[in-house]
Amino acid sequence: MQGSPPGSPATTSYTPTDRTTPTRSATQASYDREVVHAILDEGSVCHLGFVRDGAPVVLPTLYARVGERLYVHGSTGSRPLLMTGRADPGLAVCLTVTHVDGLVLARSAFHHSMNYRSVVVHGIARQVTDPEERRTALDALVDQVVPGRSRDCRPANAKELAATSVIRLDLEEVSAKMRAGGVNDEPEDLSLPHWAGVIPVRTAHGTPLTDPRLPPATPLPDYLTTR
Amino acid sequence: MQGSPPGSPATTSYTPTDRTTPTRSATQASYDREVVHAILDEGSVCHLGFVRDGAPVVLPTLYARVGERLYVHGSTGSRPLLMTGRADPGLAVCLTVTHVDGLVLARSAFHHSMNYRSVVVHGIARQVTDPEERRTALDALVDQVVPGRSRDCRPANAKELAATSVIRLDLEEVSAKMRAGGVNDEPEDLSLPHWAGVIPVRTAHGTPLTDPRLPPATPLPDYLTTR
Repeated sequence: MQGSPPGSPATTSYTPTDRTTPTRSATQASYDREVVHAILDEGSVCHLGFVRDGAPVVLPTLYARVGERLYVHGSTGSRPLLMTGRADPGLAVCLTVTHVDGLVLARSAFHHSMNYRSVVVHGIARQVTDPEERRTALDALVDQVVPGRSRDCRPANAKELAATSVIRLDLEEVSAKMRAGGVNDEPEDLSLPHWAGVIPVRTAHGTPLTDPRLPPATPLPDYLTTR
Repeated sequence: MQGSPPGSPATTSYTPTDRTTPTRSATQASYDREVVHAILDEGSVCHLGFVRDGAPVVLPTLYARVGERLYVHGSTGSRPLLMTGRADPGLAVCLTVTHVDGLVLARSAFHHSMNYRSVVVHGIARQVTDPEERRTALDALVDQVVPGRSRDCRPANAKELAATSVIRLDLEEVSAKMRAGGVNDEPEDLSLPHWAGVIPVRTAHGTPLTDPRLPPATPLPDYLTTR
């Protein structure tokens, strides 16, 4: 396997590059591994960008983090994964994860904003062919959505494995961006008669809807009741 | 102004193209204007993709829909907006909006999935220079986040307008993709001893946090209490 082993990074921060250095400073940027990992670990859906016929394509997809590697999977028949075939030099991608934390309503239209945390990863996505790494990645993709779930479902069989592409993107060129806190109004606007403040936003999970084909009174597993 | 006037499309559907036709059919695709508009109108954060130095870049940003046009704004100092300067032929972009509706836990790892609705828009983003269209777009960007808010804040002044770029992307090459419903397990897996079902996911808004600099007992505006 290529790259550093997962979980043993050389430094506590990613090295900024030209394309991970923001041109504006209204928001806070971070290259800290713990900050980046925490944002990635809180989500399971990313927006994966790549270039096809010279034009950008951005698709939502599941991801998982294992140490300093991100994994994405899909059907062997899907376009982005086909473009990272074994013989290829890999596919240049940008993988972005965003959490919205709040709507910031300022007294001026100009200072309206969002509280958010995002991670942007640039790099070359490559097909994973090692069977053990593929299994690890597929388990991680299930556990990223519901931690603990991979041990309580049937693993992929040979036919399913053959139909699944797994691609890997190493965490090397990475940045986090975030905004938090309250309203930043101009001093001369503070007396204007407009309400101002922050509306918190979060992702909420509802009551699990049990598959009607399960035996009646099947209990919810622990990893769902303790969420 | 270029293109069709907002609100008067020629047909009820967008015309599929090669890049808006999915290669797989596990999920449902739609080109229906009402379906696309409903998904776009429910959100306010998109992931905007473009190509810089041959590599993809995906950034989260606010958007607004006005008829058959999408608007995105930013600082005149930001990179993607700078790349759509007046003299340019515009910037090829892909703008994607995704709502996650549920986590689908199947008895097999392979059939784990997400319920979601997404819209992908391909096209050329262009700077908006017409002052009236810029005002309309900036009001729409505020109202996309909190409908009704643009009438209850100070509009941008000349200095703020000069610092703000507005870019437009017409809804022409557009597709929606979605998955809804329950678990799709293999028939032979139905007797396995694993819980299966769907965990609903939604975006929740918390109690508004009033700016401490507002006069005490300032009431919440109607457009917030009726959300």
